[in-house]
Amino acid sequence: MIQTRLIPRTPSAYDMPLLIKSILAQTLKYNPQREIIYRNLFRMDYYEFNKRVKRLASLFESLGLKPGDVVGVMDWDSHRYLESFFAVPCYGAILHTINVRLSPEQILYTINHAEDKIILVHEDFLPIIEGINEKITTVEKYIILSDKVYKDLTSEISKTTFEVSGEYEQLISEQNDTYEFQDFDENTWATTFYTTGTTGEPKGVYFSHRQLFMHTMSVMAYFCSYRALPFTDEDVYMPLTPLFHVHAWGFPFVATMLNNKQVYPGKYEPDMIASLLAQHQVTLSHCVPTVMTMVINCPLAKQTDLSKWKVLIGGSALTIGLSKAASAMGITVSAGYGMSETAPVLSVAHLSEEQKKLPAEERLKYTTKAGRISPFSELRIVDEEGNFLPHDGKSVGEIVGRSPWMTQGYFKDPENSEKLWGNGWLHTGDVGSIDHEYYLTISDRVKDVIKTGGEWVSSLDIENLLSQIEGVAEVAVVGVSDVKWGERPYAYVVLKPEYQDYVTADLLKEEMLKRVTSGKINKWYVPDQIQLVKEIPKTSVGKIDKKKIRKELAEKV
Amino acid sequence: MIQTRLIPRTPSAYDMPLLIKSILAQTLKYNPQREIIYRNLFRMDYYEFNKRVKRLASLFESLGLKPGDVVGVMDWDSHRYLESFFAVPCYGAILHTINVRLSPEQILYTINHAEDKIILVHEDFLPIIEGINEKITTVEKYIILSDKVYKDLTSEISKTTFEVSGEYEQLISEQNDTYEFQDFDENTWATTFYTTGTTGEPKGVYFSHRQLFMHTMSVMAYFCSYRALPFTDEDVYMPLTPLFHVHAWGFPFVATMLNNKQVYPGKYEPDMIASLLAQHQVTLSHCVPTVMTMVINCPLAKQTDLSKWKVLIGGSALTIGLSKAASAMGITVSAGYGMSETAPVLSVAHLSEEQKKLPAEERLKYTTKAGRISPFSELRIVDEEGNFLPHDGKSVGEIVGRSPWMTQGYFKDPENSEKLWGNGWLHTGDVGSIDHEYYLTISDRVKDVIKTGGEWVSSLDIENLLSQIEGVAEVAVVGVSDVKWGERPYAYVVLKPEYQDYVTADLLKEEMLKRVTSGKINKWYVPDQIQLVKEIPKTSVGKIDKKKIRKELAEKV
Repeated sequence: MIQTRLIPRTPSAYDMPLLIKSILAQTLKYNPQREIIYRNLFRMDYYEFNKRVKRLASLFESLGLKPGDVVGVMDWDSHRYLESFFAVPCYGAILHTINVRLSPEQILYTINHAEDKIILVHEDFLPIIEGINEKITTVEKYIILSDKVYKDLTSEISKTTFEVSGEYEQLISEQNDTYEFQDFDENTWATTFYTTGTTGEPKGVYFSHRQLFMHTMSVMAYFCSYRALPFTDEDVYMPLTPLFHVHAWGFPFVATMLNNKQVYPGKYEPDMIASLLAQHQVTLSHCVPTVMTMVINCPLAKQTDLSKWKVLIGGSALTIGLSKAASAMGITVSAGYGMSETAPVLSVAHLSEEQKKLPAEERLKYTTKAGRISPFSELRIVDEEGNFLPHDGKSVGEIVGRSPWMTQGYFKDPENSEKLWGNGWLHTGDVGSIDHEYYLTISDRVKDVIKTGGEWVSSLDIENLLSQIEGVAEVAVVGVSDVKWGERPYAYVVLKPEYQDYVTADLLKEEMLKRVTSGKINKWYVPDQIQLVKEIPKTSVGKIDKKKIRKELAEKV
Repeated sequence: MIQTRLIPRTPSAYDMPLLIKSILAQTLKYNPQREIIYRNLFRMDYYEFNKRVKRLASLFESLGLKPGDVVGVMDWDSHRYLESFFAVPCYGAILHTINVRLSPEQILYTINHAEDKIILVHEDFLPIIEGINEKITTVEKYIILSDKVYKDLTSEISKTTFEVSGEYEQLISEQNDTYEFQDFDENTWATTFYTTGTTGEPKGVYFSHRQLFMHTMSVMAYFCSYRALPFTDEDVYMPLTPLFHVHAWGFPFVATMLNNKQVYPGKYEPDMIASLLAQHQVTLSHCVPTVMTMVINCPLAKQTDLSKWKVLIGGSALTIGLSKAASAMGITVSAGYGMSETAPVLSVAHLSEEQKKLPAEERLKYTTKAGRISPFSELRIVDEEGNFLPHDGKSVGEIVGRSPWMTQGYFKDPENSEKLWGNGWLHTGDVGSIDHEYYLTISDRVKDVIKTGGEWVSSLDIENLLSQIEGVAEVAVVGVSDVKWGERPYAYVVLKPEYQDYVTADLLKEEMLKRVTSGKINKWYVPDQIQLVKEIPKTSVGKIDKKKIRKELAEKV
């Protein structure tokens, strides 16, 4: 950094830190009468929301929680979860959004590693805690979250073998709503959660108030000002990425800041989601492809007008097949790209004025790409020696990035932290290219690229081609070792129910070979083996689990 | 500030500072083909703009400018001025936007006080420099800005008696466009300019990169996301507040960040403005009431379709009379409030969903108020002892504020800096009330409130009433001392040309007295003296100059 002249400060002058409480403060300014809704169980306006956030902070104080302590949450997507998004960090504590889809052993690991002091746990997850409770080392208090209280105030909350402080609604109702959030350093640790990699234990990423504030600003700028996926304060928002999954991609902070009407769907059940979409005329969501597939195949959704629903798709690549299926139902879908380490948004499909004029089919080329680099994100591609490659749309290398909101390491893991930040650039582990219009194309995960006969083949390209064959519902391609070629692609394919009786693996291979004949692809793109499966293994956040597929195939051989 | 746990940092991890170069970096991402236009003289796309900004930085380097040095600019609103908004701070130097409407003595004072090293000066202002050149202490180089080069490359630039480095276009054309802007501390001093108060010399306010970045974010959020005055990247922007006036209220940073098509009008000439409005279908501007009055009374404007033009009005109160006149031409006008010390936006008229449904006449009540407090601004009202008053829409006190972008003092003036920031709140010197919907109503400047017979009367209220009487074009009210009542209101009124022959001061007084009879106002609101004048004294930035009016009246008595 070069030396410059800093602004002079007057002793009494106030310099406002960038804190999550500033986001919360917006919620009372413009349209506080808008509602936050949980299923068909609970609804409140933003006045009530603010009061409940303050009551929750008061509860933390009464339980002896200290600034810097960690509060874990195990809940479905609820208004209570949203309350903890604000009450925990604004109190100066750290929110640990526990991934409830991990194995109990992994959940235990993350609780102990993060050093959780209090855990807010939904009744549905009590069996998990029961099973690991004896090995939990740091937790002092449990607060039970129950949906029964919204149905019947006299209903009994589940009994536990371990001591609990009580039920959430009961406990916060005993607190007053006058708690005043204090100022503190904007680099204060606000949230943490764990990401499961290819090897080793889950790794803890973490974000400061300033980082979450800036991520919120960038998403707002991209979606509202540049209209990447048009989003204003009039939209009705419903998350369809769990709140433990990279803060539901940061959107609950954006929607709260914007005073949006918000709908929280609880546990993801297709009929409940479809009925909430219809009842509240939800206009904006985000999800992984698997959830979109689930929703559009739900019979109730097929009867619902979804023509105002805009959905950001991320987590895995948005295939052209899924994009067409969603568009056919009137849904606007756009791809995005990001990761746990980047809070997460790095890029979102965003058409230029010229591209908007293209026919629908042509536009798909752009809306299914990883998109254009988001405001204030800086992305580059590097070769194996770390040299920057040109942004010509052709040169392929690892994607590295910088922005004002990337995790500054993995908690208590200096070695992997240094690997992540080699040369001062965050290494995404993804391979791709960038063109002169700042469009990013992800070819693959570094570890998922298939090297066959000296040629690099993208497993995503093969998946895209297979997904467009009639009858194909879902597909996953990995490389398997091969004596002759080094590696060869191997495909798992799930067929649509109505095609299961007459589409075969041979037929699919034949279709792929036609594309070779027509010159669309080279012959080494056609998988040697196409295996029809009932379902494709998924990770805890709903992504295709290629690690598991590789393991299955290795065991098979 | 309470002590919390800060995020751990990995030695190699990069933490991106909030710098103006990040705003500049956005301009190449999404729609760089859009144009920046200067009158009918010059146009370029954002690719060219970026190259020219780099050439200008290279020029600074070749002239020996150091980070921390000050570069003054004396120009009309031009593309060159916009280039200096980016090249100077991104170089690590400080941009001094010299107020060319001050007296030569005051200009001299500000140049010496800010310690300018290089001055970019338009030919039109060379006579000013000629007159004060011998007393300028710190300037080492002058760069001449001339519009002649866009008309005729062989034309001669004005001769000067002092040495100049050359003409802008010639000089930057000799530089290369590969300059790389460096990282530095986000608290680096980026800009400075001088504000003329009621007493003493002009005072220098100053802003850091981080502050201008955050002000840009707040304005974007307010105008784009909350649609206070709907603004997206598709708008066509033209400033009508000089670029030396609080960075044209920060909008050039916003419009550049958004990749807007931008139109710079040069010297404000009504016909030129009207023709640019029509030719480029400008959709967004901002100005003081005087400029709006000038534009709508220009014959060419009356023939132009202005129905897509949205204008933020600030600097002085937007009267209901002017608001109606603009609306009648199809223009959307909204009031805003801010000051030099606050970078400047503090509040903007922003209708709630309920208010949008009101009839046009009713909506005026809200669109002409100072507006609702802008995102991340915190405003309070305090009594004379500094106690916070309730936000009930009735309690009146001095408005004090906080935000992440307020000047941290006056340069080399610790005494006034401490007064400005008494108790850690920035004192605006304005008196008003705030209601529970965060609507701010400015009653008056602290020093402009009229105290008559023990009653506080707002000069703005009287101005508003007078402005609505048929035939009244413009009005200014001040308090004059009175033996019996302490103070009494005194009005200057400018009549519309077509009314000058038959509207008299007595007639106006009669109209005001009718409003007393009908119970609208108390009788002490009616000025004892209404004086018809040809024009109302204005300050250098086009605001009504009450200091001057008071002085005139004092001399008269």
